[in-house]
Amino acid sequence: MQQLIVVKIGGNIIDDAVALESFIEKFAAIDAPKILIHGGGKLATEMATTLHIPQQMIEGRRITDEATLKIVTMVYAGFINKNLVAKLHAKTCNAIGLCGADANIILAKKRTTKEIDYGFVGDVIADGINVNFLKLLLENNTTPIIAPLTHNGNGQLLNTNADTIANEIAKAMSTHYQVQLIYCFDKKGVLQNIADENSVIKLITKENIETLKANKTIHEGMIPKIDNALQAVASGVYKVVLGHALDLNKIMKGEAGTVIK
Amino acid sequence: MQQLIVVKIGGNIIDDAVALESFIEKFAAIDAPKILIHGGGKLATEMATTLHIPQQMIEGRRITDEATLKIVTMVYAGFINKNLVAKLHAKTCNAIGLCGADANIILAKKRTTKEIDYGFVGDVIADGINVNFLKLLLENNTTPIIAPLTHNGNGQLLNTNADTIANEIAKAMSTHYQVQLIYCFDKKGVLQNIADENSVIKLITKENIETLKANKTIHEGMIPKIDNALQAVASGVYKVVLGHALDLNKIMKGEAGTVIK
Repeated sequence: MQQLIVVKIGGNIIDDAVALESFIEKFAAIDAPKILIHGGGKLATEMATTLHIPQQMIEGRRITDEATLKIVTMVYAGFINKNLVAKLHAKTCNAIGLCGADANIILAKKRTTKEIDYGFVGDVIADGINVNFLKLLLENNTTPIIAPLTHNGNGQLLNTNADTIANEIAKAMSTHYQVQLIYCFDKKGVLQNIADENSVIKLITKENIETLKANKTIHEGMIPKIDNALQAVASGVYKVVLGHALDLNKIMKGEAGTVIK
Repeated sequence: MQQLIVVKIGGNIIDDAVALESFIEKFAAIDAPKILIHGGGKLATEMATTLHIPQQMIEGRRITDEATLKIVTMVYAGFINKNLVAKLHAKTCNAIGLCGADANIILAKKRTTKEIDYGFVGDVIADGINVNFLKLLLENNTTPIIAPLTHNGNGQLLNTNADTIANEIAKAMSTHYQVQLIYCFDKKGVLQNIADENSVIKLITKENIETLKANKTIHEGMIPKIDNALQAVASGVYKVVLGHALDLNKIMKGEAGTVIK
């Protein structure tokens, strides 16, 4: 099977113009079919503050009311997405910026829980990824750059977590490609010792994960990320790597990051 | 040659939720390959006011400084574009929202004039339309919805007039399709008598245009629109129609609007 690289970046890169420029160069240089999923960074929060739209957080999650959905649509699918696309073209990467509504690439369902109303937040439905259209783009030398918004098919845009989108796309594309999913975050990988940036754990598998959890090597915040990664691997993704965006070329060569297989 | 319908809408539809809903239904129902180009309406100006970004107008044209470019990128390519796309999917139109940077569909050059610095305003370059990619989308039952932004290929987004984009796309696509270009505006067509909405001139050709200009039937504001339309026809566009967005179905049947051939 042909290789496909799915990369997710978040605020630590998007909010830092110098790091972003460097990342864009590295991403453009990947010589394989590739997809980039980006989060939003601080810009949406800053815009909400400027526009005097109060941001409600419940249990660490942003509630997406109508005014907030408008902001994330403008900032994620407009400003961040189109600037990434323009900058990638300057590095000869034939980027195309999309959100989940475009060509119905990600179909979602508004989250409904009894306890909390998250507002316009969507969860990707089963078979919700339009694999055929993404494949068509990749086969035509086009690189999808995806903003973390989905739709419900009935005219409603929905705010969806970028990590989740990356995970769902990687899993769905695994039917046609050998997918490597790279989650970029602010560390060089999962650290053996949180105080030591060079103590990256090279490999996590379902064999050693329980030990790492039991001896508290993997701290609380990392557990959902790693559980998601293991679940992706169990669903057909070839490998998941957690690492720093600026180590992208080294990650591709297997010389950096934490591999989850 | 296969038919292609290129429709341009502006503020009078985008700013009116009821009219927009009705237009979306009519556009989705067009049973032929189609492309929609949308302008920005009042939303960008409102956003600039809310964000206290002064808008500089010179000779009726908005100067696009960096802050204004950010606003139009957010509002046009983000909010308006993605909402149009989501709403079209609800009417089973497989819409994909793009700006000119996406897949390099519209390559432009920053306008440089000695007299006025328009800022980040772009003029479409010769052969600047990516005909092959638009054709690929159309052949795969996908309908491009295009926001009035272009790029220079070197990482810079540019603000470009939506009428111009519609014109350039219609001309470029004429090498592969029999293109009908429909400019929607706030009248039922070019009026014989400006006070009478029912005095629509049915046909303008290069044979009767000079008479219509000489006897002042075509008033000042309409002249550039009609000259552009005649130029499009001269460049291979099958026909151009000026009419009201809500008459779209009648226009398609040749029962409304002013045809320029």
